[in-house]
Amino acid sequence: MFYTLQKSDIKSKARAGLLQTAHGSIETPIFMPVGTVGSVKGVHQTELRDDVQAQIILGNTYHLYLRPGTQILEKAGGLHKFMNWSGPILTDSGGFQVYSLGDIRKITEAGAKFKSHIDGSAHMFTPEGVMDIQRQIGADIIMAFDECTPYPCDLNYATASMHLTHRWLQRCITRINETEPLHGYEQFLFPIVQGSTYPELRKQSAEFIAEQNCVGNAIGGLSVGEPHEDMYAMTDLVCSILPADKPRYLMGVGTPANILESISLGVDMFDCVMPTRNGRNGMLFTSQGIINIKNKKWADDFSPLDPLGTSFVDHTYSRAYLRHLFSANEYLGKQVATLHNLGFYLWLVKEARAQILNGTFSSWKEVMVKQVQTRL
Amino acid sequence: MFYTLQKSDIKSKARAGLLQTAHGSIETPIFMPVGTVGSVKGVHQTELRDDVQAQIILGNTYHLYLRPGTQILEKAGGLHKFMNWSGPILTDSGGFQVYSLGDIRKITEAGAKFKSHIDGSAHMFTPEGVMDIQRQIGADIIMAFDECTPYPCDLNYATASMHLTHRWLQRCITRINETEPLHGYEQFLFPIVQGSTYPELRKQSAEFIAEQNCVGNAIGGLSVGEPHEDMYAMTDLVCSILPADKPRYLMGVGTPANILESISLGVDMFDCVMPTRNGRNGMLFTSQGIINIKNKKWADDFSPLDPLGTSFVDHTYSRAYLRHLFSANEYLGKQVATLHNLGFYLWLVKEARAQILNGTFSSWKEVMVKQVQTRL
Repeated sequence: MFYTLQKSDIKSKARAGLLQTAHGSIETPIFMPVGTVGSVKGVHQTELRDDVQAQIILGNTYHLYLRPGTQILEKAGGLHKFMNWSGPILTDSGGFQVYSLGDIRKITEAGAKFKSHIDGSAHMFTPEGVMDIQRQIGADIIMAFDECTPYPCDLNYATASMHLTHRWLQRCITRINETEPLHGYEQFLFPIVQGSTYPELRKQSAEFIAEQNCVGNAIGGLSVGEPHEDMYAMTDLVCSILPADKPRYLMGVGTPANILESISLGVDMFDCVMPTRNGRNGMLFTSQGIINIKNKKWADDFSPLDPLGTSFVDHTYSRAYLRHLFSANEYLGKQVATLHNLGFYLWLVKEARAQILNGTFSSWKEVMVKQVQTRL
Repeated sequence: MFYTLQKSDIKSKARAGLLQTAHGSIETPIFMPVGTVGSVKGVHQTELRDDVQAQIILGNTYHLYLRPGTQILEKAGGLHKFMNWSGPILTDSGGFQVYSLGDIRKITEAGAKFKSHIDGSAHMFTPEGVMDIQRQIGADIIMAFDECTPYPCDLNYATASMHLTHRWLQRCITRINETEPLHGYEQFLFPIVQGSTYPELRKQSAEFIAEQNCVGNAIGGLSVGEPHEDMYAMTDLVCSILPADKPRYLMGVGTPANILESISLGVDMFDCVMPTRNGRNGMLFTSQGIINIKNKKWADDFSPLDPLGTSFVDHTYSRAYLRHLFSANEYLGKQVATLHNLGFYLWLVKEARAQILNGTFSSWKEVMVKQVQTRL
């Protein structure tokens, strides 16, 4: 059993569940720290496990394919061994990264031609090729190859793109079914719902995805610039169609408030660069609100970084010291802020889960959504 | 008793000893990681203590004076509390940093005028002012304000500069004697021998410094570009004059081989940016030799970073993975290399001490000096 639904909230569509992979189980709802090139930027794997308490991390097919390359990864025995991370890994398919390349990629029925952002060399991703790469990487959860549409996107393009994503999905499923895992453990394919911000397309896509009967499903093409209301509306619609007995992964989302709102709509899995990237820029997310640690007001605040925080950094360092590290452009500042933010994101989903199990999620969420958006 | 000489080597001038400070004791010979602005770059204080096993770290008066500034440091209760490092700290006086500023500083009898490298603002360091700043910082060991001469340096300039350093030292001693520690524990002043590479000047300076009867003594103005032979000759000469019952600190030195050779000449304390700076550039120092981890030869070497290493990184990460982190410009690579190098430097001096106590230092040193210079 890949997914077990443990509890559904009464006042919302929030759920608590359990995912089983060869590298361990994952309690949902869950947030997955992003380790683009086989490293969550500035964080040791031991810190991810012991301090952040990450249960699963994310890697990027596009980046890993370019560096270190599939030959090295296969020789290493897969990404887990290469980076020495023994917990579960999910890899995205490269669809989003190829979309981000803009002018230096071209999409056809066959797949996506693109130029490497590193050396300009030409490459081609096909649904079959991307499945093979993810077999080589050895992720526990592998994502279908899709086209991620931009926002805004006209109806014609969104419709054609959605159908292309669906055809690519069938090729992904065929390829997965005709190949074996390379590293001795099962890998689970998640298809991705597209359809931009058009309810009718989202409905069609969710129904098509649901019919494929994969063990888990993802919602892509959101958090690409559309208003939050549209993101929530599409998420709500899609979650109402995707089967309840399978986990739902909302790709690339989001702020703490986005995550709480999406949990209440029935989402189980999240990833986002926000805690790491914004952390490196001095933005701290806490249960009391948002801190811009570069602000002069923290210069002589010698209180702990976050008295309610779960990371060791929250009690080890003061706000004044962290502000100093950012002022002096010391890399330790980025490390501290990253650990804090990841610890907070993992705390947030863990607490959400506890509230769901306790039957108190909705009222807790209402309070928390306001708190996490306060500017301190 | 600040310093206890525990054992002198028979076949060399190497010594094992013990320093006592309010923040703990230090076994010598010792290497002090450099934490310029109140952070050893890329390393958590907990890692310094538990993984690197640093017994004392170094801060820079010049940098700390500019950022965060003495007002913040005094309000924080000193640098130990500000950065949450409970072990001993030594601060250099800023003499070397002011010397490094080149054209944007001017030295007179009164002191050194300079412009901040951050914002160009004008400042003046005097011997008295620098003692006051180090009182505010609260270092356990504070360095006299000196002029560090460049290499090469003509005899006239070196002579005049040495006398200036001596006059400044007397002003430092007077200031220290007429002021009290601000943070409730004793601070120890080390004077600095100068004299460029002129034996007669070094002899004069060492005799002058010895006469001041401070609890420890330092050798400055070396490792500034002179041949290693000159550095060793000056160190040997100065160590023969400085009292044996007080610790000797060779400032800014050096490579692993430099450190071993200097220990055999009677030096007890070292600091250098080499393990941290070179680490950030991908150079690893090991007991077997030097690794340039960026080299393609490591791309598929999945063996541990350093099977004989003492840091957790040595057994957690492979050479192939670290090389990948450097190729992909991931900051974790710099963190790993820094931890490895600091762990190695601390292991090296700890092992040197064990060999001295065991009476086997000289033969061990001969073998080790060759090994640590091998290119792997």
